[in-house]
Amino acid sequence: MSQLKGNLMFGQSGGPTSVINASAAGVFLEALKHSDVIEKVFGAAHGIVGILNEDFYDINQEDPAELELLKYTPSSALGSVRYKMADPAKDETDYRRLLEVFRKYNIRYFFYNGGNDSMDTCNKISKFMQKSGWEIRCMGVPKTIDNDLFGTDHCPGFASAAKYLATSTMEVFLDATVYNNTQITILEVMGRNAGWLTAATALANMKGLGPDLIYLPEIPVDLEQIRQDIAKVFEEKGKVIVAISEGVKTTDGKFLPELSGEVAVDAFGHKQMGGTGEVLATFLKDNFDTKIRTIEFSLLQRCAAHLASSNDIDEAFEAGAMAVRKAVEGMTDHMIGFQRAEGSEYKVEYITIPLDKVANTERKVPREWINEAGNQINEHFYEYALPLIQGEPARPLEDSLPRFAKLKKVKYKA
Amino acid sequence: MSQLKGNLMFGQSGGPTSVINASAAGVFLEALKHSDVIEKVFGAAHGIVGILNEDFYDINQEDPAELELLKYTPSSALGSVRYKMADPAKDETDYRRLLEVFRKYNIRYFFYNGGNDSMDTCNKISKFMQKSGWEIRCMGVPKTIDNDLFGTDHCPGFASAAKYLATSTMEVFLDATVYNNTQITILEVMGRNAGWLTAATALANMKGLGPDLIYLPEIPVDLEQIRQDIAKVFEEKGKVIVAISEGVKTTDGKFLPELSGEVAVDAFGHKQMGGTGEVLATFLKDNFDTKIRTIEFSLLQRCAAHLASSNDIDEAFEAGAMAVRKAVEGMTDHMIGFQRAEGSEYKVEYITIPLDKVANTERKVPREWINEAGNQINEHFYEYALPLIQGEPARPLEDSLPRFAKLKKVKYKA
Repeated sequence: MSQLKGNLMFGQSGGPTSVINASAAGVFLEALKHSDVIEKVFGAAHGIVGILNEDFYDINQEDPAELELLKYTPSSALGSVRYKMADPAKDETDYRRLLEVFRKYNIRYFFYNGGNDSMDTCNKISKFMQKSGWEIRCMGVPKTIDNDLFGTDHCPGFASAAKYLATSTMEVFLDATVYNNTQITILEVMGRNAGWLTAATALANMKGLGPDLIYLPEIPVDLEQIRQDIAKVFEEKGKVIVAISEGVKTTDGKFLPELSGEVAVDAFGHKQMGGTGEVLATFLKDNFDTKIRTIEFSLLQRCAAHLASSNDIDEAFEAGAMAVRKAVEGMTDHMIGFQRAEGSEYKVEYITIPLDKVANTERKVPREWINEAGNQINEHFYEYALPLIQGEPARPLEDSLPRFAKLKKVKYKA
Repeated sequence: MSQLKGNLMFGQSGGPTSVINASAAGVFLEALKHSDVIEKVFGAAHGIVGILNEDFYDINQEDPAELELLKYTPSSALGSVRYKMADPAKDETDYRRLLEVFRKYNIRYFFYNGGNDSMDTCNKISKFMQKSGWEIRCMGVPKTIDNDLFGTDHCPGFASAAKYLATSTMEVFLDATVYNNTQITILEVMGRNAGWLTAATALANMKGLGPDLIYLPEIPVDLEQIRQDIAKVFEEKGKVIVAISEGVKTTDGKFLPELSGEVAVDAFGHKQMGGTGEVLATFLKDNFDTKIRTIEFSLLQRCAAHLASSNDIDEAFEAGAMAVRKAVEGMTDHMIGFQRAEGSEYKVEYITIPLDKVANTERKVPREWINEAGNQINEHFYEYALPLIQGEPARPLEDSLPRFAKLKKVKYKA
C-alpha cells in the first residue's frame, strides 16, 4: 500500500434522502481520524458545481458532535446539485477546471455521494484524473431512495423511504376505509424507472393494511386494464387502495402525464396536466361513481428522517467511513456496495464495485417478485425489504421536534 | 347522585384523527370498570347510522390489551360517518328511531365523539331524550384536528396533527432548499374555516426551518398581495416556502378552487380545478420563472399516529374516561373540555361545557396571534401550541412497523 498525503473533497449530489448525511458523517468522522495522511477535509457546496467554483466548507472547523447529528438530519447538508458533466471525449473544459482546483488545493481524495448519474460523474472524473496523471483516490458512496444502483444489494436511503411509505400506507389505509361509503384512494410514489419504492407500500400488506393494487414502472400498464382491476376490487369491497409509481408507462411507452393531452382530446374529455396519480384519478372519475382521492407522497417520502431505519443509518454511515478507509489503504475508482451475508439473520458485508460497472446501469425489481397479473407484489420482496427497515434510531429531539445538525459551514479560503 | 343502571353506547363521528381511538379506549376501559351500573358496552358501527340500523359491536368481548392498543391506532376503529340529523323541530323520524333502539337495548349512557357537527348531533339527541322522558346520560367527547370546538382550550387530535405538520415542515424545508437554484414550495394544510393546523407549521419557525409566509382562513387573501409577499422573499432568498390553508378565502369570500373558473376566463388563462395549493401554484407560474412545487399533506396529517404527542394521547384517553365518570356520577348534556391550569408548567384541567353552548360554534385563531400583514404567525401561538405537542408515546411496533389494535368487532345481537 502506497501512502498518499493530501486533502479530501466530499460532495453530495442528486435528490436528497433521509440518511444521505449519515454518509457525510461517515466520511467526515473517519477522515478526521486519518490526519496523518488526510490533512484537510472539505465539503463541496452543491456538489461538483461547488468544486468548479472553489466554493467549499472547511469541515475541520465543525464541532464533531454536530457532525454526529448529521446521522439524523435529512436532505443534503452541504447542498446538492443536478449538473450533468459533458462527455470528456467531446468537451474537457469542466474536467480541466477540476484538475486545476484539485492541484490548487492538493485534493488527493475525492468522494462523491449519489445515485446513477453521480456515479457516472465520479467515474468520468476518476478516469480523467488517471489519464492526466494527477494521483488521486476517487471513491463513490452510494445513495438513492430509488434503490436502482447496479452491483449492490440495496442503496442507502431506500430503506428509510420504504419504512416511511409502509407506515404511512398502513395509516392511510385505516383512514381511507373509515366511512360507510365507497372510496378509491390512489397513492402516488416516486421512482421514475424502477419500482422499488412503490413496491415498499406492499410491506403494509404484511399487516393486512396495504394497497389492493400496485403498479410499477417495470410492467407496462394499460388504463383499461387498471380500470378492470379496480372494478373487481370495488365490486367486492367498495373501497380500493391503489399504489402507483410516478414512472409507470403505458404499453406505448408513455408516462401517464404525457397521456393527458390525448386523454383530453380523444377519449375522456378532460384537460389535465397533473401527476401520474391525478391522471389516473381523472380517468377513473368517468368510470366510477364514488369519491376518488389522490395522495402524492412527494418530498415527504425522501426527507422523513423521523421514520428512518437504524439499519439504513448505520449502513449509510459505514459506506462513507468504508470509502475513506479503502482509499487510505490505496483503493480508487470504486463504489462501496452492500452484499447480504449468508445465513438466516440479516447482516451486511461491504463490497467495492468498479465505478465503470456502476455508472448508468439501472437495477429493477425482478419480474418474479411481481405477481403474474403485474398488479401486486409477492413475498420475495417482503423477504428482501423487511430486514432493511428494521430499527428505531435514537433521534435527538428538542421540544419534541427534531434536533437537526447545525453546521457552521465556514467557507474555505486558500 | 342518582344511580342509573343500563347499557352504554359509544359512537365515533366525523373525520378521524391520530388519537380518536384513545378516547374510545378511555370510554371503554373506564366503562368496563363500572359494571355495577354499566352492564353492557356497545360501540356503534359508523356512528349514529350504526345505532339507527342496530349495527353495533359488543365491546365486552374485546381483549383489554387490544383496547389499550387503541391509544396508538389512528382513524376511527368503529368506523365513522358524516350524517346530518334533521332539525327535530321539523322532522323527528331519526330521533324516534333512536329512542326505539335505546329502549330496545336499554341504552342509558350515550357518548358521542366528534367535532362541531357531532356535538350538534349529540346536543339534539340529548334534548330529544329529555323531552321524551327516556332517562339517559348523554355526553360529548371532543375530537377534531381542526381544533375549533368552542369552550375548550384545545381539542384532542389537534396536537398530534400539529406535531406531524411541524416536523414534516422542518424536513421539507431542508429538502426544498437543497439545490443551488430558486424554488417556491407550497404546503397545503387542512382546515376549512379555522387556521389552527396551518398555524402549526409555524412551530418549525422556532427551529429556523419554517414557512416564510403563512395564510389562514381567518384573514381574507388577495392573490395579488400573495404574489407581492412571495416576490419580496424570492428576491431576498431565492427560495420561498408558503403554508396555506385549504380554507383561505378571498376578500370576495371565495375559496381559491372556486376562483379557477374565473381565473381561467378573465384573468390568468388557466383551466384548473385542483386544490387550494394547486390554484396558487398555477397563478404563480405566470409570475415567477422558477420551479414551483405543491405538497398537500392530505390524509397524512390526520392519521400520522407515528408522530402523535403523548400529551394528546393522554388527554384524549382521559376525556373519554372522564365522560364516563361524570355520567356515572349523574351528569348529562355536557361535553368534556380542557382548561390550562395556572402556573408556568403546562397542565390540563378537565371541565364540562353544556352541549348547547358547544354545538356549531367555531373557535378561530385569535387575530393577535397573526402578524399585522396577515401572513405569519407570532410567539403567542408558539406559547399556546408547543406544550401540546410534547412527549413521545411508546407506540408498539412489530417488524419496525406499527402494531395497531386488532378488535374482534363482534356484532351484538339482542
